[in-house]
Amino acid sequence: MAGRRRWTREELVEGVRAGDRRALARAISLVENGDRLAAEVVHDLYPETGRAYAVGITGPPGVGKSSLIAALLPHVRGLGLSVGVVSVDPSSPFSQGALLGDRIRLADHFLDPGVFIRSMGTRGHLGGLAEASLQALLLLDAAGKDVVFVETVGTGQSEVEVIGIADTVLLVLMPGSGDSIQALKAGIMEIPDVIAVNKLDHPAARTMVKEVRSVLALDADREWQPPIVLTEAVRGENVAKLWEEIASHRAFLERDGLLEERRRRNLSQEVFAVASSRAKAHLVRAVEDDAELRRVLEEVEGRRLDPLSAVDEILEKVFRIDADGR
Amino acid sequence: MAGRRRWTREELVEGVRAGDRRALARAISLVENGDRLAAEVVHDLYPETGRAYAVGITGPPGVGKSSLIAALLPHVRGLGLSVGVVSVDPSSPFSQGALLGDRIRLADHFLDPGVFIRSMGTRGHLGGLAEASLQALLLLDAAGKDVVFVETVGTGQSEVEVIGIADTVLLVLMPGSGDSIQALKAGIMEIPDVIAVNKLDHPAARTMVKEVRSVLALDADREWQPPIVLTEAVRGENVAKLWEEIASHRAFLERDGLLEERRRRNLSQEVFAVASSRAKAHLVRAVEDDAELRRVLEEVEGRRLDPLSAVDEILEKVFRIDADGR
Repeated sequence: MAGRRRWTREELVEGVRAGDRRALARAISLVENGDRLAAEVVHDLYPETGRAYAVGITGPPGVGKSSLIAALLPHVRGLGLSVGVVSVDPSSPFSQGALLGDRIRLADHFLDPGVFIRSMGTRGHLGGLAEASLQALLLLDAAGKDVVFVETVGTGQSEVEVIGIADTVLLVLMPGSGDSIQALKAGIMEIPDVIAVNKLDHPAARTMVKEVRSVLALDADREWQPPIVLTEAVRGENVAKLWEEIASHRAFLERDGLLEERRRRNLSQEVFAVASSRAKAHLVRAVEDDAELRRVLEEVEGRRLDPLSAVDEILEKVFRIDADGR
Repeated sequence: MAGRRRWTREELVEGVRAGDRRALARAISLVENGDRLAAEVVHDLYPETGRAYAVGITGPPGVGKSSLIAALLPHVRGLGLSVGVVSVDPSSPFSQGALLGDRIRLADHFLDPGVFIRSMGTRGHLGGLAEASLQALLLLDAAGKDVVFVETVGTGQSEVEVIGIADTVLLVLMPGSGDSIQALKAGIMEIPDVIAVNKLDHPAARTMVKEVRSVLALDADREWQPPIVLTEAVRGENVAKLWEEIASHRAFLERDGLLEERRRRNLSQEVFAVASSRAKAHLVRAVEDDAELRRVLEEVEGRRLDPLSAVDEILEKVFRIDADGR
């Protein structure tokens, strides 16, 4: 097994830089395990990154995000671009090894040296999904991939942190995605850059497009109006059109340096997201390891010490932050 | 204006304890503003809490959570129980002042001394929604409310932290809540204790109930099988049935001391949630206030220092956590 080989930091850096699949696979496994060596490799390669275009693909489970990526692959490859795919969606077919209708089509891509597909589990990763997906993106970028797709699921905070590194965010919906429409309308989900309504043969698909359009019309002054594309991922329908819209968004960002500005903002947000995840993991462990802090929790459970005083005590002891958070 | 009066810590504690509406309103405003006085009042009252039964009500925006609470109010009052309501859903009609079809019905309740309804904004609150909702719940508990409803929205992390303090979690769905069903099925949303499918007149309501039932059937070994109730909030249909199911869940928890165990777990999870929110806020502020840390971020943006080394530097400087998170 390639995984058994002991790679040095230099070998991994060289290998990833050369686009070597085994080096890349090994480096991403190290990321998954939160290994210090992964951080060192990313550290060495970081100055060479920033060339890949990162597309975040999000949406509720079951809408066909993975199928859409599988359909985009041959199209994007046909344009002469190399592609990396990172999936951090635990419900994704990529993650489950089962690739549904895309099994054969994707199997071809696994052999194409211009394509690298990887799903990541991050259970117990100290820096959380944000850290793992950021590192994987940077490795694929350093390996020379022109485009990197980052797939994630849902509408919650951790998903925002994962696609927070994307240059273009694609939201995938399908007929029946009423909850997401409501969340967009209520301002609880952020407006993405491009929207795909998948399963165009479904009788309600066009109704869904109209609903999305009416939500977007609520803010007609937006500088970038997110295009809505009706797709059928399994048959690859309108996938070229979808890619065109992603490319248009990129062109929009590149005008007047908006891309650079967005990347700067994304990077600092990611730094805060990763730092907070690590701080939380540190807190949990500190309390586990410290009998006195465990006693503080027991006092709360016994209704003798209120939870917020307990927070103050814990933050003071672990981080030396005083009661006003100073 | 009642709000103009200067309350002392002792007056607030006395007032809340006596169930005085103005004292309660003032204390919750202080919670909303993250005022230190709120924490002091909660501190003093905490030993008297633990008597209220906390019901968390969650679900996508627009499914009728607030209407369902409005319909539950007269029923629960009719049973001789006093009720507190805290809404931390920014899309809730409670929060927006407009109470839709429930305007008149709720107006009655606003005059009923056995009911206290309050929506909370928490923009900029250091401890986030988790802290604010926990404090509000404890105040309503100390004020002698028998039941407290905590309303929140969505399926993300911050929502889990808000209803993480609930004894019983009620998930509200409606026909068209396909995304939530998929999220339950994929294990991305936690299984609630009771489920209401609202808008029973909708032709797809029964189909939705069947879908929910089939998801729950995937884990038939669960000790508590979440009941599913088809409701019509605006007309109050099946609201008594819904309350019965919430009461059954409570009876289930009270057998063999499960309630006590759940509350202990909830309380320590809340302590960690609040502590992490505060740690994150502290981090952001520390970087804002420190030219050297701002320079670290600039190095990242300029691709000279990788984001994870920046995280290490920031954590080391702000919290004295070294690179391995120790």
